[in-house]
Order: sequence, then C-alpha cells, then structure tokens
Amino acid sequence: MNPEDIVGPVEGTKVPRFAGESTFARLPRIDQVSDYDVAILGAPFDGGVSYRPGARFGPMAIRQASRHLRPAYHPDLQVAPFRTIQAVDAGDIPCNPFDIDSALKQIDDGASELVSDSRKLVTLGGDHTVTLGLLRALVKVHGPIAMIHFDSHLDTWDSYFGADRTHGTFMRRAFEEGLLIEDKSLHVGIRGPLYDQQDLINDKNFGFSTVRAADFDRMGVEEVIGLARKRVGDSPMYLSIDIDVLDPAFAPGTGTPEMGGFTSRELLSLVRGMPREQMIGADIVEVAPAYDHAEITSLAAATLAYEIMSLMALNVTDKKG
Amino acid sequence: MNPEDIVGPVEGTKVPRFAGESTFARLPRIDQVSDYDVAILGAPFDGGVSYRPGARFGPMAIRQASRHLRPAYHPDLQVAPFRTIQAVDAGDIPCNPFDIDSALKQIDDGASELVSDSRKLVTLGGDHTVTLGLLRALVKVHGPIAMIHFDSHLDTWDSYFGADRTHGTFMRRAFEEGLLIEDKSLHVGIRGPLYDQQDLINDKNFGFSTVRAADFDRMGVEEVIGLARKRVGDSPMYLSIDIDVLDPAFAPGTGTPEMGGFTSRELLSLVRGMPREQMIGADIVEVAPAYDHAEITSLAAATLAYEIMSLMALNVTDKKG
Amino acid sequence: MNPEDIVGPVEGTKVPRFAGESTFARLPRIDQVSDYDVAILGAPFDGGVSYRPGARFGPMAIRQASRHLRPAYHPDLQVAPFRTIQAVDAGDIPCNPFDIDSALKQIDDGASELVSDSRKLVTLGGDHTVTLGLLRALVKVHGPIAMIHFDSHLDTWDSYFGADRTHGTFMRRAFEEGLLIEDKSLHVGIRGPLYDQQDLINDKNFGFSTVRAADFDRMGVEEVIGLARKRVGDSPMYLSIDIDVLDPAFAPGTGTPEMGGFTSRELLSLVRGMPREQMIGADIVEVAPAYDHAEITSLAAATLAYEIMSLMALNVTDKKG
Amino acid sequence: MNPEDIVGPVEGTKVPRFAGESTFARLPRIDQVSDYDVAILGAPFDGGVSYRPGARFGPMAIRQASRHLRPAYHPDLQVAPFRTIQAVDAGDIPCNPFDIDSALKQIDDGASELVSDSRKLVTLGGDHTVTLGLLRALVKVHGPIAMIHFDSHLDTWDSYFGADRTHGTFMRRAFEEGLLIEDKSLHVGIRGPLYDQQDLINDKNFGFSTVRAADFDRMGVEEVIGLARKRVGDSPMYLSIDIDVLDPAFAPGTGTPEMGGFTSRELLSLVRGMPREQMIGADIVEVAPAYDHAEITSLAAATLAYEIMSLMALNVTDKKG
Amino acid sequence: MNPEDIVGPVEGTKVPRFAGESTFARLPRIDQVSDYDVAILGAPFDGGVSYRPGARFGPMAIRQASRHLRPAYHPDLQVAPFRTIQAVDAGDIPCNPFDIDSALKQIDDGASELVSDSRKLVTLGGDHTVTLGLLRALVKVHGPIAMIHFDSHLDTWDSYFGADRTHGTFMRRAFEEGLLIEDKSLHVGIRGPLYDQQDLINDKNFGFSTVRAADFDRMGVEEVIGLARKRVGDSPMYLSIDIDVLDPAFAPGTGTPEMGGFTSRELLSLVRGMPREQMIGADIVEVAPAYDHAEITSLAAATLAYEIMSLMALNVTDKKG
Amino acid sequence: MNPEDIVGPVEGTKVPRFAGESTFARLPRIDQVSDYDVAILGAPFDGGVSYRPGARFGPMAIRQASRHLRPAYHPDLQVAPFRTIQAVDAGDIPCNPFDIDSALKQIDDGASELVSDSRKLVTLGGDHTVTLGLLRALVKVHGPIAMIHFDSHLDTWDSYFGADRTHGTFMRRAFEEGLLIEDKSLHVGIRGPLYDQQDLINDKNFGFSTVRAADFDRMGVEEVIGLARKRVGDSPMYLSIDIDVLDPAFAPGTGTPEMGGFTSRELLSLVRGMPREQMIGADIVEVAPAYDHAEITSLAAATLAYEIMSLMALNVTDKKG
Repeated sequence: MNPEDIVGPVEGTKVPRFAGESTFARLPRIDQVSDYDVAILGAPFDGGVSYRPGARFGPMAIRQASRHLRPAYHPDLQVAPFRTIQAVDAGDIPCNPFDIDSALKQIDDGASELVSDSRKLVTLGGDHTVTLGLLRALVKVHGPIAMIHFDSHLDTWDSYFGADRTHGTFMRRAFEEGLLIEDKSLHVGIRGPLYDQQDLINDKNFGFSTVRAADFDRMGVEEVIGLARKRVGDSPMYLSIDIDVLDPAFAPGTGTPEMGGFTSRELLSLVRGMPREQMIGADIVEVAPAYDHAEITSLAAATLAYEIMSLMALNVTDKKG
Repeated sequence: MNPEDIVGPVEGTKVPRFAGESTFARLPRIDQVSDYDVAILGAPFDGGVSYRPGARFGPMAIRQASRHLRPAYHPDLQVAPFRTIQAVDAGDIPCNPFDIDSALKQIDDGASELVSDSRKLVTLGGDHTVTLGLLRALVKVHGPIAMIHFDSHLDTWDSYFGADRTHGTFMRRAFEEGLLIEDKSLHVGIRGPLYDQQDLINDKNFGFSTVRAADFDRMGVEEVIGLARKRVGDSPMYLSIDIDVLDPAFAPGTGTPEMGGFTSRELLSLVRGMPREQMIGADIVEVAPAYDHAEITSLAAATLAYEIMSLMALNVTDKKG
Repeated sequence: MNPEDIVGPVEGTKVPRFAGESTFARLPRIDQVSDYDVAILGAPFDGGVSYRPGARFGPMAIRQASRHLRPAYHPDLQVAPFRTIQAVDAGDIPCNPFDIDSALKQIDDGASELVSDSRKLVTLGGDHTVTLGLLRALVKVHGPIAMIHFDSHLDTWDSYFGADRTHGTFMRRAFEEGLLIEDKSLHVGIRGPLYDQQDLINDKNFGFSTVRAADFDRMGVEEVIGLARKRVGDSPMYLSIDIDVLDPAFAPGTGTPEMGGFTSRELLSLVRGMPREQMIGADIVEVAPAYDHAEITSLAAATLAYEIMSLMALNVTDKKG
Repeated sequence: MNPEDIVGPVEGTKVPRFAGESTFARLPRIDQVSDYDVAILGAPFDGGVSYRPGARFGPMAIRQASRHLRPAYHPDLQVAPFRTIQAVDAGDIPCNPFDIDSALKQIDDGASELVSDSRKLVTLGGDHTVTLGLLRALVKVHGPIAMIHFDSHLDTWDSYFGADRTHGTFMRRAFEEGLLIEDKSLHVGIRGPLYDQQDLINDKNFGFSTVRAADFDRMGVEEVIGLARKRVGDSPMYLSIDIDVLDPAFAPGTGTPEMGGFTSRELLSLVRGMPREQMIGADIVEVAPAYDHAEITSLAAATLAYEIMSLMALNVTDKKG
Repeated sequence: MNPEDIVGPVEGTKVPRFAGESTFARLPRIDQVSDYDVAILGAPFDGGVSYRPGARFGPMAIRQASRHLRPAYHPDLQVAPFRTIQAVDAGDIPCNPFDIDSALKQIDDGASELVSDSRKLVTLGGDHTVTLGLLRALVKVHGPIAMIHFDSHLDTWDSYFGADRTHGTFMRRAFEEGLLIEDKSLHVGIRGPLYDQQDLINDKNFGFSTVRAADFDRMGVEEVIGLARKRVGDSPMYLSIDIDVLDPAFAPGTGTPEMGGFTSRELLSLVRGMPREQMIGADIVEVAPAYDHAEITSLAAATLAYEIMSLMALNVTDKKG
Repeated sequence: MNPEDIVGPVEGTKVPRFAGESTFARLPRIDQVSDYDVAILGAPFDGGVSYRPGARFGPMAIRQASRHLRPAYHPDLQVAPFRTIQAVDAGDIPCNPFDIDSALKQIDDGASELVSDSRKLVTLGGDHTVTLGLLRALVKVHGPIAMIHFDSHLDTWDSYFGADRTHGTFMRRAFEEGLLIEDKSLHVGIRGPLYDQQDLINDKNFGFSTVRAADFDRMGVEEVIGLARKRVGDSPMYLSIDIDVLDPAFAPGTGTPEMGGFTSRELLSLVRGMPREQMIGADIVEVAPAYDHAEITSLAAATLAYEIMSLMALNVTDKKG
C-alpha cells in the first residue's frame, strides 16, 4: 500500500489510551479501510482445553491490554509498523463453544476469507486447538509450512478422552493432515513431565525438533535462533506462541502453566531473531484472563502481537530498502 | 443404619480442620463404610456453559471450603446429621470434558450405581448441564419428579449453537424426556433480561411455575415456601440450586452472574422450608472458583450441601420420633 | 423510529457473548445507524476524585461486563427495549486527563452534539465530576431540571484543595449555575460521616431533599418512590447514579466506598419506580475497575444502564399503547 | 476536656486523606495530647485462631482503611465526635506471637495503663482471644461487666488442642474468671453448625442469652435492641464485635466466615441501638486482611470503631445537654 | 519393589486431572499399598512464623496444584519416577496449632513411623519450624546429616520473643542438638538485610557455609553444584527448600518474601544438580496460599516435590543400571 | 552524627514487625530526633499520569511493606546503615491532587525545607512528575546535577494533552529548566514502542545517553555500571528509579508496565554499582498498589529505598575508614 493511504491507530496524544475504540492497539476495523496487509483476528474458543478453561476471553483481554501500547515506532527494530503496513482489526470469529470440529471449520472458513499471498493474519486465541483451523486455511494459500512453536508442551498427543482435535493434539493432527513440512518444524521452550515417554519418540517421528527449556540454558538466544533459521530454511514459516512458554511468574493467566519457563526478555529476543522473511502468519494463544492479574499476561500477549507485526513491517522495509 | 455403626467425619478437635482428608466435610470415603444413606458426588463438568467456564473446578473447591464446617450439630434444625445418617463422599465422576453427551452418560451411569430408594445423592457441579444426567438416573428409581429449581435463569432454551443439552437448555430437555411431572415444578429466584419473550411462554407451557426475584420482594419467605409445598404436593421432589441464585456479592464465583439476587440468609431460610419429606436428591451447581475470592462462593455451596444433608437427616429423625 | 428499521445488538445465539463487538450490550455503533433514540456515551475522566482514582477505566469495564446481558426482553418491565427504541453506542469522549475544566468543556461539547429533544444519553463515568458537563449540555435543550441523585455522598462541598469543580462539589456548582430547579431534586442513599455539619445545612439551602440510608430502613421502597415522584412533579428529570450508593459488598470497585449501603435488589426496585416519564437522561458513575473483582461492580453498572434504557423504551410503549 | 483544647484529626481538606499520619482516622497520637477520653489501641495477635490466621495484620489494615473516613460530623447520631471527646491513637501492644498467655498478659498490662473510669479503649484485633486480656484489664477498673457479643460463634468451647485460651474459648474463660456478670450477657448473630450440641447447653449454663441470625429474621432490629438493653440493665457493658458477624459478602477478610450473616446496614442499626450509656469499652476483632479485597472488611471495621466512638461522644453530649 | 507391583497415580487420560483424588499428584494413599519407597507427608503447622502466617494451608494447596502435573515421565532426568519407585501420599500430621513443642513432637513421632533406611519422606510444610521435627526423626535412622538449605534466610537466630524453636531459629537448634554434621551444611540463596551482623558470624561458627544470592551471580549453577557436592561428600544429605528462595515474582505466596531471589529455572537447575545419591529426605516449606495467585507458588512447590521424587527414582535406576 | 546518639528503628525482636509505627522501616519520625542525615519523604501525587492512576497510595504502601525489612545490617554492602547515619521518616508532602503546578510547588517547598549539603532525601512517589519538584529543590543546594534514570520510558515528551509537566515530560522540563548538566545523564532500562521516532532524537539532543533493556543483554551489569560512572564523573548525581524498570512480573503494581524489563536481582546489582559517592538524593516512583499483589511491588520499592540508604551510609563509613 501507499504509505500516505495507510490508516493508522487512534493517536494516544489526541484520545487518551484508556478511551475510544477497543480494537487491537486501537487500529482501524477492517471495514474502515479498502485493503490491508495484516489483520488481527480473534479466535475466542476454549473447548479444547484439558485443565483450566477461560481462553475464550483471551482476544477480549489482549485487545484491552493492547490499548497500553504506544504503537507508532519500534526503536529496537527501527520500524514504524503502522505507517509501513496497513494493519487492521478483523474482529472475532464466532466459534461454536460446544463443538470442536464446528469451531475448527468456522476458523478455517473465517481465516480463509482473510488471507491471501499478500494479506497476513496474526491471530489471538483461544486455546491452542485454534491453530489447527488456522493452518488449514493458510496451507490452502501457501502449501505446507514450517512451524516455529513456542510452548511448554509438545501438543502431539494422539487423542484425549476420545477427542482427536484438542489443544494437546493439534500438532500431531497438523502433521498427519500434511499441513507441516517434515523435518522443518521446531518446538522451543518445552518443559515439564509427560504422560508417556513415547510422546518424545512420537514427536521425533513426526519430524519435529525440540529445544527444551533446559537446552536453552546451555544454548542461549543466538544458538536457538540459528537452529530455527536452519530448520526453516526457505520454507514458508508459521509462528505459534503458546503464552505458557513464559514462566508462570510472567504469564500466570494461562490454562496449563509449567514452572521453569522463559523470562519475557528472553522470549522477546528469541522472537525478534526468528526467520521473519519466511513468516506467513502467526498466533498467540492460551491467554486465560481469569487467572491473570494486573493484565501482565494480556500485556505480554499484546506486546508479542505488536512485535510480530513489526517484524512483518520490517520485511516490507527491507524489500523497499 | 444403626447410629452406633455410623462413621462420622474426622473430628476437628483431634485433627485441625486445615489438615487431613479432602473429602466433603472430611466425611469417610465411600469405600470406608459398608453402606450409606447419603453420598456426596462430584460432577466436574463445564462443557455446557455459555459464558464463563470453570465450574469443572467446583467440586474440588467446595470440598476444600467444606473443611471449615464444624459438622456435628445443626442448632437451627436441631439435628446431628452425621450421627443420624451415614453420609459419605463418593468422589468424582470422571466426565469427558469434550463431549456433552458422553459426559451425561457418565453421570447417569455413575449416579445410577449410587442411588436407590434408600440411598440419596447430593451432587456438586459442574455446570447445570449435569443435572440432566442426574435426573435420568433418579427417574429410573423414583419415576418422574417435581423439581424445585433455585436459579437466576430458566434454563429452558431450546438449543444453543446447535447444542441441545447445555446449562441453558437442560430444564426443557428434562421436561421433554418425561423426567419432570407436569405442573409440579417451580423456578425460584429468576431475574435478568432474556434473549426472547417467548422463553417465558415456553416455560409456562412446560408446566413450570416461577417466583421471580422481584416477586420475592412482595411474597416473602413464607409465601414462597407455601407455594413450593403446594406445587410439589406428595410427589418425589428434587432440589437443584444454581449458586447464581445468590446475588453476585454473595456468590461472585460463578459463570453467569445476575445483579439483584438473594442474600445468603434469604436462601438459607427458603431452603430450610422446602418440602424436605419429598426430597429424593439435590445438587448445587455452577461454582466457578477462578472468579471467587476468599472462598465465599465455595463456602456458601458447602454450607448449602450441609443444610440439605441435615434436612435429609431430619426426615430420619422425624420418622423415628 | 420504525420498529422494523431498528438495528439491534449482535445476537447472542449467533455470536457468543464473549466474542465480537465491544460496544455496550453489543449494540450498533452510532455510525452504523441513520438516527437513534438513546445513545450510550463513555466519559472516561477521573481527574476530579478525592480518594481512589481509576474511574477513567469505568466505561471500558462496564462495556465488557455488558456483554453478559441477554438484552432482548426485560420480563419485569415487559418491554423489548432494543426493538422499541434505536439504541447505539456513541463511544467515548476524549477527556483531557490533566485539566478538569477542559474535560468538562469536552463533555459539554460532546454531549451537546448528541442530545436533542428526542435523542437521549445514558452516560458511563468516569468520576462524578462528569455529570456537571453533562448537565450543562442537557440544560441547553431542556432548561433547568430536577435531579434524582443516588449516592452515598451529597457532593455539595464548596471547593476542595482550591478546585471548584470536583466529584465532591459538582452538585453545588450545578445548583449555582442554575442547572437545577430549586426544591425539585433529591439525594437517595446518603450515609457516612461528614467533614462538616454545615454540609447538611448548605445542602438544604440549595433546595435539595435527602433520603439517608438510615431513612430508607424506615421508609421502604414505595415511600421513597412516592417522595421522588412528588419532588420531580412534571419537571424534566435527570437520573444520576453513583455506584457507591450500593454497599461495598455489591460494588467494591469504586473510589469512595461507604459501609451500610443498598443491596442491588433494593436499588433495582428504586430505579424501576423513578418517574421515568420525566427522565431526559441518566448516568452511572464512579466505577473504578482496579478495585472490582469478578466484574461484580461493572456488571451492576451495566445492568443499571440497561434498566434505564428499558425505562426509556417503556415510555415509548406507553405512548403508543 | 475543654472542647477548645481538643486536638482533632488531620483535616482532609488540608492534607489529602491518602497522605500523612497512619493513626486511626488520622487522630493525634497519644503522646501528642496531655490527656484523652478514648484511645484506639491495636492488639495485633492471632496466635489463638483455629482456622485461617492473619488477624495480626488487622490493626494495620483497619487504620489504613480509616483514612477514608471524613470524621468531623456524624449526621445520623448528630454528634461531632472528635470535637466532643479527645480521641487518640495509642498504637499497638507488642504481643508475643508464640505464647498466648504472654500475649494476654501484655494486653492486660498494656490496657491497664490506658484505662481508667474516665478513659476508654476501643481496641482493634487481632483474633478474639485478645478480648480476654482486655476484659481482665477493664474489670480491675469497673468490676464484672455485661457483654454484648456480636459474632457468628459462641466462643465458649472448653479447650482446643489442649489450649484453654483461644479465640473459640475466651468467653467461657471470661465467665469462669468472674469477668462477666451472670445473666447479663448476650450473643448476637450466632449461626452455623457446631462441634457439639452440648455447646449450646453449656452456653446457657454460663448465663448467656443468644440471638441467632435465624432469630433476627423474626425479631428485627428493634426487638434485639430491646433485649440487649433489658439484659444489660444498669450494669457496665462491654461491646465486642467479631467482624464475622457480617455475612462473608460484607466481610470476606476474616478467619472463620459463616454463610448467612448480617448485612452491614443491619449491623450499623443494631450497634447504634446498643445501651451506649453503659458502654465502658469495645473492640472489633478478627479482621484478616489477606482474605479481604478492596479493603471492604477493613473499612467496615474502621466504620464500626468510628460509630462506637461517636456513641461515646454522644454520652458526653447527653450529659452536657 | 517390583516394578509390576507398583501402584501409580490416577491416569490423567482416564480421569481428568481436575477430578478425583486429592492426594499429591493423585498418587495412591499409604493405606492402598503394602509398602512404599517414598511418602509425601503434610506438616500443616505455621505457629512458628515471625511475619505473615498461613503456611498451615500449604500442604492442601500444594496437593491441589500437583493435580496439574502429568507425572509419568520426566524427560530431563529420563526417568519414569512412579514406575520406578512406589510413591504414596501419607496424609497430614495433625499438628497442634497452639504449641510449638507439641507440634514438633507430633512431627517427630509421625515421621518416625514412616521413615526407615529404605523409606523416604518428602514433606510439604508448614513453616520452616517443621524441619526441626523432621530432622529429629531422620537422625534416629541415619545419624547426623549434612543439610542443603535453599532459603533467603539463615534461620539461625538464637530465639525470638522468648521462643527457641521457630522458623527463624530451627537451623541453630538443629546444630545444637547434634542433628547436623559440622562443616557439611550449606545455605543457598541467602539475601536481604539482617537484625544483626553477628548472625553471620554465628552462622559460620555453627559450621555452615553460605552461597548468597549475590554470590550466585558470580558463581553460576555449576560452581554452586560443585560446592554442594564437596560440602556433603559422602554424608547423608537432607534437602530443605524454603520456597522464599525464589524471587517474590515466582513465589508471592510465602510469609517472608525477599526481593532479588532465584528464578524458577535457576532453582530447578540447582536442585537437579544436588548430590542426590546422598539424599535421605527433603522438604518444601513456607508456602502461604493466601498470598499466592493463580497457584504459581503452589505449582512451583509441587513441581519441586516431583523433581525430588524423580531424583530419588533416578538413584534406584542408577543402581539397577 | 555521633553513632551513640543515633536513634534507630523499632527493634523487630522487641516489637513484632507487624505491630507498631508505620514509618518507613519503623524509623523514628523527624520530630523525634534533633537532626538527621537522610530523610524518607512521601510525595503522594499521581495527577500527572497518562494511563493507570493510583501512585498516590504509593508512599503508604511502601511504608507498610518496609515493615518486613530487618534493617540493622546489610551483609552484601557490609554496613549497618541505621547505626551509621541518622535516618528519619519526614512524612508526606500534602500535594494538591487537582493541580500539577501547585503540587510541584508544594514538593519543591517541602523538599527545600528538608535538604541541605549534609541532609539527603530519599523520596517515595507518587508518579514520576514529582521528580521535577524534587530536582528544583535539590538544584538550589547542589547546582545542576547528573541524573541516573532507571525507567522503561524516556519521559522526554514535549507535552501531553496540553500539560507541560507530567510523568511523561518531566525529564525534558528538567533539562530545559537547567536542572540537569548536559551530557551527564543516563537512562537505563528503556524499552517498548514509542509515539514517535523523534522522541529518540530529541532525547539525544537533550544530552541524555541511553541503555535500552535490549542493550543490557549485550552489555551486562559491569559495563552499564562503568558507563554510568563515566557519564556522571565527579558531578553531583541524582538517582531516580521508576519501578516499571522492573519487568511486570516483578512489579505488577505500576501504572505503565512494559514487557521485557529487569529482574529484581539485575536491578539490585545495578543500583549497588552506581556512583554512590556522587549521590545527593534519590527517589523511587510509580508504585500503584491497586495493581500489586502480595505486596511484591511495594516490597521491591521498600528494598530499593533501603539499598540506597545503605549506599549513603557506606559513603560515611568510607570517609571514616
């Protein structure tokens, strides 16, 4: 888009940040612009959770916390994202709260209408099940993809209480459905005990590679970034961040917290180093506001969404540069 | 049972109430006695909720709060319930979190194993959907029943997002399945706006009568009790208490709170006056601990369960008397 | 408006209430309709508070809580408000957080653009200072008015730390500016100690009458309603509800709580009995979400706004009837 | 004292209530005046509790909440308490947290230094055990007394885990030590189940009379006041308020909450009607701030302390009148 | 034990983790197995605390949080702990809440019944006083021991308010009673100011060595592990973790928090490196749930208990290896 | 002062820390000593905030949390601060809550009375606007100063809603008013997006240097300390800590939190290395207790104030040494 045609967020110097629109970062709604580069999308579904529910309120809470952002310029990345790309808020997909497969279809359909080669989605969950619906939509445009998956859990169980598509199984289903390119994906931040040792073996068999939280202590930020770039190569990459990859101190508002996670500064450094040139979409999931306090989890999720949009803007700047 | 054979709760003067067993009121587990009169049962299912989830943690939280009770003697009812009846904790039914009908079947099956003419259940939800499963089990023993339903909502919608059995539709299903005797049931505490005026008409057509919160101001405790007794007559009666019948000040920890509800003292007075001689079972549902504070909602639910068991014990005393 | 032209809220049976628009009760935005009968307006200003700040986040929080409403039909008032009147959400006035008089002017200007003889406002505060700005706008249309003022405080101090227009002085200023008709206004719910006995004498001199919380115990709902109707007579009436008129148990999320307030059921009964035929506007102020829990204060405020809009709709029905 | 010599609280119109001294209601410290009529005293001891501890932080929290009071004039009682009596904050008694009897002796000694025929104490607990120490001090000045005891519990157990002096036994000890006049004391607000039916019989044998919460529904405020006045007659009276006499909705921040308690308005009405002419001292105990939210429990306790001091001031006014 | 005879926890794939037994990690109760290798024991006593009480609710809260664990396989340690050792939940010791020495004797007696050369305890506090009772029991079996003590405080005061055995003095008493081998013990994580410089000198005189939090910045994980292993040598080692060794961000739910503590990942790395071959028992103490939120402190404690049991299982695997 | 004349804090071994005076660290009040070296001062003003208000309650909350300190000896710095310098609590400045310039004048006047060459202030905010008032007072004594500014924000906007002196502009005003020596000041911890790229350029033009949070990852503690010492040289230095320099996990209780901040251990290390010999005063600001939990933010602020006073004491020890 022409920079001069871009409609930016409501300006915090004119309307106080605690007033006005409830869109993400107070961006324009999708119906207020003629076209867009990146759309924020809410997927308020938590019917796939195995422990604490509540992520259905995630999109609402992340948008509220995003009011706090002063979004004009990102000094670490040196980009003015919302003057570079047209970003919009596309609202929420009305997901059926009682039927996982209906909800997945609604997400697939809703996302399919919004994505194209040049239009990207940054989705706010919802539990991690929603990523399966999103991948189905994206693969129709981009073909199979490499996944960078920040999470404390592998999410590659086979089934859970007879349900094949839940927040603990979606990665396996994605692989089985051919949505992921074999040997290209990477889990980062995995920790905590397992129901079964076989989980690890299965996971490897699906062609995933893993950086456990304990590995990170040894590897450091740069080595993990290097590994991620190597795994992805020149494939299209999707970035999925389960907020529970952060330690519960940084993200209490989530459904399946695990002790021993990343600090928020570590996660920001890692995300900034991901192979953004390949990134065709992203999501931040598993924010359960009923367990949050002082909005720290929602604010972390909102900041991550902003970081990702800034990386997308940087890709545009790079090409122009 | 023989009073001298009754196994009572752990004594608070020997083991501090913050220590020891996590059973309801620190009662014996079902496997620790040869038989029982009343069993507490957990139904940790919240897959049928339309707004805030979390009632799956209800049974756990109510049991924790029940530790606070000093259960030996109820001075208002003048009964020593756990020396009069053998009460036990039967644990939780492992409900499928992803499939409403599976969960209902698990509840029906689980409850069916526990109830008989002489054995009663007091169930801790879970969302209100669980009552449907419980009624199915009870009706097999007692035939169709009269329902006294404390709630801020009618729960007689037809369906919701294509789901026929949810916490907002279970009363209608119960009627349609023939579980309720026509013209014998009563809603108490109804308030708040509706999706549709037709809801009220339907409800009447199903043979329910209603005491709205606004009616209660005019009628008072005694008149409502009289109406309940008249409705039930000599039919078997089931008492279902949605904790949201209390005002949010008294029960913040619930999924669909409505301003303008009962105080806890009003609810206790009403419950104590219900036609206990006809009561063949009861439940307390919709406690969502993530929204509670200082355990006030869980404590209210635990106290209500204790009141109900005391009423059941009083029936035994009456007969002996 | 023609009922068939009315645009109603997003339907909760199609889009779950936790998804979609963040407008009040998910009503249409003002730019989505050609005209309206009643507009919800946010006045996120708390620069006039003397104790706990935070009411700037009130409009946002009340809108979030209003998602919970199922707004189609009000069974106690027997009206379908949003099929009877065209209600809209007019967004927030961007109030200057640092300058009380600037903010008051912004509120006066903003409200003036929205009100007319046939268009009414229901405003969500913000602290009680905002009512002064609103009255200035309304008086330009309706002339001086009678005020029904639910509050635990008189708000008739002369000045506070040199500031003449604060949440503790706005009622006196309103009187002095000729915005209120002498001997027509009424305070309801006043309680708590005072800085000075003279406050009471002054208040009377300004022509206010007062129902203290302690008076209410003696008078009851009907007598207070009678007094309110008598005071107002056939003058235009403005209804201003400081949420702290509720007891802190029912409304912890406020800036200057006072022990011994109304229950939510008492307040609903009183509000429903106010002389609605005279009501030319209303506000609900002093919701400070940082002190709320489980949204009980925000939900009370949202319900009150809905009640008021239902009363406004009832006026329309009455005329047609 | 001469009214003109009285040192009042820091004025809220000169120093904002959120600033300055942390004394109760920002009254002068005891070392800042030459003499006093009433002293606020903290007894931060919770070593006698049987369930949730934390009342050691009660005095601190109640003082913080008392900042919110505008203490100059009490319009319901029509008295300007701090212009009528010299009230001071006497600080805290440093109670031994590990030894109940040491703490009781410290409280007895500390209170004894502060009370005389003309000097009264209003003590902030601490758990209810502290009342025993206070009574020992008072009886040395006034002889045995009548007790008006607002509480949800009788506090007349014999012993608990071998401890004879705890928050559940202090009333019995007080009777046995001859601190209470037989047949003059009254429990108000009692509710909840008991460890033993014998508790009730014992209690009667100690000469206590009881108004249960359930009795109050029938009796109402005036009848309870009449009974209290009749019981006390012309004996010296001590008023002890366990904050758990309020319903948990009004006082969540306490150690042994019981469903079904008083509303704050009911409690205020009752306290205002107590035989104040006989009142020689008072306490408010069992505020456990870790379980409070938005300071509602602490504010209730602070308001009650202010009410009591206003009643004491009224006695002075009466005599002068 | 024979692996095939081992009774494992309730399986999370059959009974959802939010349902069923409230034992630690849903392990079998001690009465459900014939013998055991490791028992979880609750010591709900907080009568020895100097600041915030509430750790009496620690065992209950840690067990609740432990439901979240998926305990079958520990991928970082490569062990399936509950298939390797028979772990059980031995319930709580009913500690006298009013008498420290009685409670210590109850803990000593209770633990003595449960430990032997081949049976180990992992105890959940309670405040740190309980460790003294546990050491007394253990030394009867193992003789004096080396202590690895994770804490922000030395706990070697002489006495406090005349009490010799409190959570701030237990380490000194343990040394004086001959329970600790001189020059073998190590404090890790110490920080914050002191009542007296002499504390440090005394501590050294008792033969303790200390790694302050500030030292850790310089030393790193590996050097601290090396020092711990060197100190312990081949002596029997007891591991005691005061949860306040974590920074308050990671463990807000504790009684005496100190700024500047470990992150949860640092603590996990340190614990995993401790000389597990020598470990004859362990405890995790000072979890005060009233100050926790979203269970992050309880979950950290539960995870640490699981890590320790996994290390104990690894010792078995090593020997078999 | 003569060490033997120094009046220290209330001793925690004589009066439990939860009892007694509410001064900072229970130090003597300023009126209890003849002279002092360092005074704690409260500046409870939050009229300059752009997002979440509430820092007016900061001084009160930090003092409450400071009770937890055992302040006699600082083992890392090896100093007994309150035996080395006479520290006092000077209470709060009664700031006008409605008028920024009045409040700034009150702060300037109040601080001017308290500071001299040999008397230093450590001020507890309040929002960051208060630092401007403090600098005005200090510069009158010391001349222009170098500023070490820990914060996540630059605070060098030009104006905000027409207000020139707010918490987002005070640094620019300080520069323009000649309070800061050009090229001597340093921002540490800056992060998050900006309203405008120009902010960075302006900031440099004002002669500030910046260590962003992202720079810190690369530089480490020692290099930042070196840079700070180099910037300050031998100029008088003022240390201003906005608590939001900590990550929200460590300091949730603040008004404008930013993801990705310092851990508390990093901040302590940095503060300890600052050029203390040059330090002529300090403040800790932006603690907003309504958003805190378990006092972790207030405790961090209290600990930082204690660290700073310990550094000031160390300067005295150095000179004597």
